[in-house]
Amino acid sequence: MKSFKSPKGLQRWSLEMRTQGTPVALVPTMGFLHQGHISLMRRARRAVGKSGKVVVSIYVNPSQFGKGEDFKTYPRNLTRDLQLCGQEKVDAVFIPDNAAMYPGDYSTFVLEEDVSSSLEAVTRPTHFRGVTTIVCQLFNIAQPEVAIFGEKDFQQAITIKRMVRDLHLPVRILIAPTCREQDGLAMSSRNAYLSPNQRQQATVLYQMILRARELVNQGKPSSWNPVRLQKALEPMLLETPGVRLDYLAFVDSEHLRPMQRVTRGCRMLLAAYLGSTRLIDNARL
Amino acid sequence: MKSFKSPKGLQRWSLEMRTQGTPVALVPTMGFLHQGHISLMRRARRAVGKSGKVVVSIYVNPSQFGKGEDFKTYPRNLTRDLQLCGQEKVDAVFIPDNAAMYPGDYSTFVLEEDVSSSLEAVTRPTHFRGVTTIVCQLFNIAQPEVAIFGEKDFQQAITIKRMVRDLHLPVRILIAPTCREQDGLAMSSRNAYLSPNQRQQATVLYQMILRARELVNQGKPSSWNPVRLQKALEPMLLETPGVRLDYLAFVDSEHLRPMQRVTRGCRMLLAAYLGSTRLIDNARL
Repeated sequence: MKSFKSPKGLQRWSLEMRTQGTPVALVPTMGFLHQGHISLMRRARRAVGKSGKVVVSIYVNPSQFGKGEDFKTYPRNLTRDLQLCGQEKVDAVFIPDNAAMYPGDYSTFVLEEDVSSSLEAVTRPTHFRGVTTIVCQLFNIAQPEVAIFGEKDFQQAITIKRMVRDLHLPVRILIAPTCREQDGLAMSSRNAYLSPNQRQQATVLYQMILRARELVNQGKPSSWNPVRLQKALEPMLLETPGVRLDYLAFVDSEHLRPMQRVTRGCRMLLAAYLGSTRLIDNARL
Repeated sequence: MKSFKSPKGLQRWSLEMRTQGTPVALVPTMGFLHQGHISLMRRARRAVGKSGKVVVSIYVNPSQFGKGEDFKTYPRNLTRDLQLCGQEKVDAVFIPDNAAMYPGDYSTFVLEEDVSSSLEAVTRPTHFRGVTTIVCQLFNIAQPEVAIFGEKDFQQAITIKRMVRDLHLPVRILIAPTCREQDGLAMSSRNAYLSPNQRQQATVLYQMILRARELVNQGKPSSWNPVRLQKALEPMLLETPGVRLDYLAFVDSEHLRPMQRVTRGCRMLLAAYLGSTRLIDNARL
């Protein structure tokens, strides 16, 4: 497995792959890899085949964390990450440092102003600007033909798809299904922050999704407006006092616009705090 | 000469060039080509040689025009432009329409927030956001190994260099010298707006540069601060009442930061209105 620290080094290799006609699949991560990331790596391998190259980037990107957020405490374990990448037969890992990605006079940002301006952006107003900026950098460095993102960060995936379309980046974006623990909790590096009690209460996020899906699939197409559906789910939150809802929304899956009527096929997204830990989840209803 | 209207069409061809190892040089223009553009095309050819490909884009980019600016009246002459490109043995022209570059729900912008935040940005606050956005699009579409920009738009060239560095775009930026009319006026498509009297008065811009260079090269390194130098040039403006100065600045050539002392090697930039026509010029002193 190759390991690159310098953007120029990886870029030289990637451009060489382009010249050879060897496709590259990129899996951008912030490390502390779990089963969800592994499923992205396997999806990447399926996309480019044995003759293609799978590149995993491991970088906790400071520009996507807001003030007071968990940039410093974000869990890290590079040794274990590299071991996992090795086991998954990844071809190259990219482990840049901040000076390489954001030199002292760094000044260029990529901004998506439609699909990334609602939902997560209300609580995290600078988050997606950081995401689009680093992903644009990573795409230019790794020159992937295809890149894999997890459905768990659904708004992120839709935002990146829009950026790719608008800026004509020559990359195909694949969205891989959310991996869940046995009790349904969406896998996330941030789950490591949870106390045992919080960990148990956190399952309510997915329980709410399942309940919403059930209600919507039972009801007539016209029977659920978003307010009524949210009201129907609220008792579940009252039973888990450790969970404080940040938002709960029902949107269309392409433009993330609020639905007047919640019907089968629309997407439910939610975010909640457990103590100071903020978790998100979403699914198609 | 190939002609592409569709971004996908050009991108397919450009990626094919990458796979073949054939370098592409891009000359981004807004058309209404003049000798300045021709010199950029020749510089492009020298950069990639006979076996490389020179691509000229011709697109009046709406996003770099502010409200009340001259987007609608910007001079256009596609027939003549194509003829010139043919004469210069350009390999491909790219002539997209607005729907291809900015579809109805377009929402992604590239923002440079340091070198593009002064000088031109004071009068044209959204200009460089439009420039960096379209140039990023063009680079992704045409996949150039090298791109040529004119020194006349110096702040633009420096802004693009910064964007390229920050976003790790695999493109070399070359800045080609300003082409001037016999009387020194920097060539610009906007010169077509000038009345004969304005055309004559417009020469004062370059005259001021020459005079500043003379003064700075005569003086001791410590003798010119920006205010004193500007005062020394002002009589030239009083003699040309048709010219209204927008700004006059002395900066370093890399970060465009104002100089405390104006010395040899620093850059003078200026912008001025002749009626409603706005012209810019600059040079190393």
